[in-house]
Amino acid sequence: MVFVHYFALRGFLLILLGALLIAKPAGAQQPALKLMPMPSSVQAGTGSLRVDSSFSVALTGFTEPRLERSVERFLQQLARQTGIPLNFKPAKSGQATLVIRTDHPGKEIQEVGEDESYSLEVTPAGAKLTAPTPLGTLHGLQTFLQLVDVSSDGFRAGGVTIEDRPRFPWRGLMIDSARHFIPLEVLRRNLDGMEALKMDVFHWHLSDNQGFRVESKRFPKLQELGSDGLYYTQDEIRDVIAYARDRGIRVVPEFDMPGHSTSWFAGYPELASAPSPYKIERRWGIFDPAMDPTKESTYKFLDQFIGEMANLFPDQFFHVGGDEVNGKQWDANKEIQQFMRAHGIQNNQTLQAYFNKRLQPIVEKHGKSMIGWDEILDPTLPKDVTIQSWRGQASLAAAARQGYRGILSNGYYLDLGWPASRHYAVDPMSGDAANLSPEEQRRILGGESCMWSEYVDAENIDSRIWPRNAAIAERLWSLPDTRDPASMYARSYFIATRLEWLGLTHRTSYWRMLHRIAGAAAPEEFAALETLTAQLEPVKDYTREQTAPAEPSSLTPMNRVVDAVPLESDAGRRFGELVDRFIGTSCLDADAGARLRAQLTAWRDNDARLEPLAERSFLVGEVAMRSRDLSALGAMGLAALDAIAKRQPASEAWKTQQLATIEQLKKQKAQLLLMPVPAVGRLVEAAGGGTCMGVK
Amino acid sequence: MVFVHYFALRGFLLILLGALLIAKPAGAQQPALKLMPMPSSVQAGTGSLRVDSSFSVALTGFTEPRLERSVERFLQQLARQTGIPLNFKPAKSGQATLVIRTDHPGKEIQEVGEDESYSLEVTPAGAKLTAPTPLGTLHGLQTFLQLVDVSSDGFRAGGVTIEDRPRFPWRGLMIDSARHFIPLEVLRRNLDGMEALKMDVFHWHLSDNQGFRVESKRFPKLQELGSDGLYYTQDEIRDVIAYARDRGIRVVPEFDMPGHSTSWFAGYPELASAPSPYKIERRWGIFDPAMDPTKESTYKFLDQFIGEMANLFPDQFFHVGGDEVNGKQWDANKEIQQFMRAHGIQNNQTLQAYFNKRLQPIVEKHGKSMIGWDEILDPTLPKDVTIQSWRGQASLAAAARQGYRGILSNGYYLDLGWPASRHYAVDPMSGDAANLSPEEQRRILGGESCMWSEYVDAENIDSRIWPRNAAIAERLWSLPDTRDPASMYARSYFIATRLEWLGLTHRTSYWRMLHRIAGAAAPEEFAALETLTAQLEPVKDYTREQTAPAEPSSLTPMNRVVDAVPLESDAGRRFGELVDRFIGTSCLDADAGARLRAQLTAWRDNDARLEPLAERSFLVGEVAMRSRDLSALGAMGLAALDAIAKRQPASEAWKTQQLATIEQLKKQKAQLLLMPVPAVGRLVEAAGGGTCMGVK
Repeated sequence: MVFVHYFALRGFLLILLGALLIAKPAGAQQPALKLMPMPSSVQAGTGSLRVDSSFSVALTGFTEPRLERSVERFLQQLARQTGIPLNFKPAKSGQATLVIRTDHPGKEIQEVGEDESYSLEVTPAGAKLTAPTPLGTLHGLQTFLQLVDVSSDGFRAGGVTIEDRPRFPWRGLMIDSARHFIPLEVLRRNLDGMEALKMDVFHWHLSDNQGFRVESKRFPKLQELGSDGLYYTQDEIRDVIAYARDRGIRVVPEFDMPGHSTSWFAGYPELASAPSPYKIERRWGIFDPAMDPTKESTYKFLDQFIGEMANLFPDQFFHVGGDEVNGKQWDANKEIQQFMRAHGIQNNQTLQAYFNKRLQPIVEKHGKSMIGWDEILDPTLPKDVTIQSWRGQASLAAAARQGYRGILSNGYYLDLGWPASRHYAVDPMSGDAANLSPEEQRRILGGESCMWSEYVDAENIDSRIWPRNAAIAERLWSLPDTRDPASMYARSYFIATRLEWLGLTHRTSYWRMLHRIAGAAAPEEFAALETLTAQLEPVKDYTREQTAPAEPSSLTPMNRVVDAVPLESDAGRRFGELVDRFIGTSCLDADAGARLRAQLTAWRDNDARLEPLAERSFLVGEVAMRSRDLSALGAMGLAALDAIAKRQPASEAWKTQQLATIEQLKKQKAQLLLMPVPAVGRLVEAAGGGTCMGVK
Repeated sequence: MVFVHYFALRGFLLILLGALLIAKPAGAQQPALKLMPMPSSVQAGTGSLRVDSSFSVALTGFTEPRLERSVERFLQQLARQTGIPLNFKPAKSGQATLVIRTDHPGKEIQEVGEDESYSLEVTPAGAKLTAPTPLGTLHGLQTFLQLVDVSSDGFRAGGVTIEDRPRFPWRGLMIDSARHFIPLEVLRRNLDGMEALKMDVFHWHLSDNQGFRVESKRFPKLQELGSDGLYYTQDEIRDVIAYARDRGIRVVPEFDMPGHSTSWFAGYPELASAPSPYKIERRWGIFDPAMDPTKESTYKFLDQFIGEMANLFPDQFFHVGGDEVNGKQWDANKEIQQFMRAHGIQNNQTLQAYFNKRLQPIVEKHGKSMIGWDEILDPTLPKDVTIQSWRGQASLAAAARQGYRGILSNGYYLDLGWPASRHYAVDPMSGDAANLSPEEQRRILGGESCMWSEYVDAENIDSRIWPRNAAIAERLWSLPDTRDPASMYARSYFIATRLEWLGLTHRTSYWRMLHRIAGAAAPEEFAALETLTAQLEPVKDYTREQTAPAEPSSLTPMNRVVDAVPLESDAGRRFGELVDRFIGTSCLDADAGARLRAQLTAWRDNDARLEPLAERSFLVGEVAMRSRDLSALGAMGLAALDAIAKRQPASEAWKTQQLATIEQLKKQKAQLLLMPVPAVGRLVEAAGGGTCMGVK
């Protein structure tokens, strides 16, 4: 009976699948809109607008040089996207293909909460983009670029009516250019990426134990002794700020204090809470040096320094860091202890609060609003202070309840190696924040993804930020019900390609690093290496520190497989989806079955092809164990498929043994995870019984 | 008997093959030197030199800022190659890892025939590079970079003693920046590529019918009306020249005259042989406009213009073009006809010789030596003139016999789409030149590859030049017996990867263009497109003009598959090699057979995977026929393999029919050739009889 049932069901499903397969090409001719972040309102229109060499853009209403440059940049980007030569100058007449109307100027210094909305209407006859301010216009141009795609009849933008505005006013990306120096051209291309994803804050982490990256004319020993010569001049910084402003992006500088400040002390040891000498820290972690909050000379220095920097950075916000002070220097300093007793300061947390209470008026005096990490939160600080929460959503909600504005970064740490879907699920308004009053909720300005740079340099930083950052950008811009990970991944794959056109190197740099790892490999050997690395991801969270073969530092070469492979494996995720699709049809989907078999066979045979290269290259040799693991995984999956094909459930003993192996394979080796392991585990389960064996 | 013989042979061969396969990994641990161009003398030493973060370079003997910059650039490149952080400053002590000794300075303006030799010795204890002049030092540094590769124990340079010098003093690359404007950064990265391959002349084709690309301060209408605003300022040109000099490269400017000069006439129609108006030519081909060689005002203009340019370009040589004057304007101009009669000039060729005889003293007066294309060759010109032969080796030899120096470009036209091996086989000293006396042979200075830019722009130019240009560079540098194409291809594959590290985009740009063609394709669809395009090459020679669907021009988008795919398909060549290897073992090589089967199966099944995308994208749709051809080819190859596997010779009728299909498939479609067609034809032949069927 079971078998009859099974075959009847199978026949039915095969017909169904056949119908689905036939339907696919036709459906595929009108692909879903590949917009990211998804606008708040999209209404599909009829027809589409042709993009050819006659394409033109006119600026009407308010205009300014920034908007003219943005149109020129838009046309250059459109030419790159399509390969069609275009005239890059804005058209003079209102008869252009795309007519823009901007109502009025934006603020001279871009502010939090300016109107960023826009409307975009595309018909076969032309396109209209209207926005109250230049910020909306900039966003609308990016949306238009995403609408243009190759079609069966030239390049076209699908007919559509879009009304769009951001959910949060603060949508940031923090880049740490202290631990590894990040060159200007890398920052610029990431600003281009931010513009494409409608992010509006570049939070620039400019000083830390490992480096002081800004030229100070008032205190030149900061960069001279604190940077190995790797710092940004004030002219360069002004250029970056102008570049960002052109793209609707604010630049918020961070100078981390009183901790994370060893690099300051290399030139100015008198700021520290313990005697000199100091030199730049090369290792990673939390270190003892901290500013002395009890000396007046500290505040005198900071007054002058912040005055200089407040002049250099026009943004309203000034980030003072404030995180991870371990207090050891304070504990060991008798004068500080005496000061604490004299002022009734009972612990280091209160001492830091004292520091912040001294710091805040200095920041305010220079016309800025102070922002810092969770640790600065103290009810005695004025309500003008903003909290950036790296510790969790609870502390963000707590700050909002106390009347402070805040932004969320917990859940958005790009360096932890999470899949995009996990970041995507983090919402600034979820958790404790969901219970806030509307007034309190308005204090939550948005969020920021954070790219800490212990394991990031100019070569691999793009692949650590993109495309995962696009998911966070969408979370911060789009409506809360835009949250289907499958849709996000499909659009993100498309956007990732387009980001390479902007000059980002998240894919090409991976490929170049892989060639370095392979050295003078034959093409087939290189292909075998690619087959392996496509399935690998670096270990997650802070496991990399915990599993490091030797103490890592800023001098450690970052040329290993763990430095090269993306933090999220597309191929690994897709394999898992294919397994689920197969099992979801009771293993009747013949196409999925065949593709699984081909993939597993390739893995099984891959190690033999890679082995000679693993012997020649120490960088490949390091992952030889993972290569053997992948081959073992392939063999195991094939055995499971064989059992399924025969509809003969595998023995319990076999299943138990395989699942034990699966558990072993899940562990990191060479700081790498083999991503398809759990999915093969599911195949093993399916081979042991259940619907794939005809048992409901 | 045949069968017994067959199986006995088969058993023997299988054992032999097994032994070869086992031997492979061991042999592979000491890969052949991947040097390109191959040095004139290489002696393998013992052991190898470790490259780690302590690596340092010292300059001894003569030094100069150029050498210091070259060392800094070398160290940056070494850091990029290895991923190891290095100190980029030259070491002060002689105790460095690599000690350089340069004997004396080079010429202030680099000259043809300066000593470019160097010696390089690498031992486990260190490396020594010695050279008479900075040019040799520059070359030696490039050789060292090529020696460094990943090993089983870190990055290492193999122990070796190299004595090296170029065979020819003139090893050039011509880039046409007139037909399509080529931006500065593209030129710079190609100069980097030239340095890596030890080429020493950048021939800059700066004016043609389609554009005048240099700023003239004396005659500003040249660029103002002749360039669409796309020209190089004099400051930019000086920068390019300095950049080139730093890399041991001379810059020879070309201003093509009296033909190929429409763009001059846009601003200065009085120079032409027919009345105005003129505007920039948009189409390709040979056009009528030519300077009027009979008017004194022409020479007055040229005297002033050449005077200005002679000041701007320091090189000793000044290229005056001189090619392809069709004479139609001269024929139609009564005053010119009258002048010819008055001066006894009987035909246009003699009129052009008259022009050149007037031009040469002007060039000489401004301190330059005149060089031009074949057409300027005339025995009445002084022997100081140099001939660049695009027409053939015979004219080069003829010039040498008449006492003129010459360089070869016939056989080195990169735009014709030849495989590297075909360029590689062209030797400036072969053909007629082989019969020259030693003195005459010395007049042959070398050669130049030429990148004419009808179908080339900033996006795809790198893939039209590289890696094929490396084969030409080797031909011009290395000894004539360095001519094994297999070795050249193996080294070129490796060098191609390294050129990407220099910023060249021959591979990454292909990938980006393919994504544009695919649009919002699913990953599997994109993979299907890649499978197809890997086997395609653009049509050869001048077939592209002849098969153009519409008259092409400088305004035609270059976004088609024919613009994206490399001019030589590595995958296609390798498939052919695999077929030959298989047939060469009487079809007994089981590994080759299995790989062929896998490849052919993938092709057979590929069209079904690509079809939905071909319906959605017109750019994929254009190659849909080639996709069906590839699938048909796969099916045909599989049928041949089946017959071979069964050792049952296919029928004559089948063979005839298949070979007729093969002939059809060899033809271009969408201006594309399907490269594996001939190799599948060989499989069909093998299935029809011969050793694969056990018949000797």
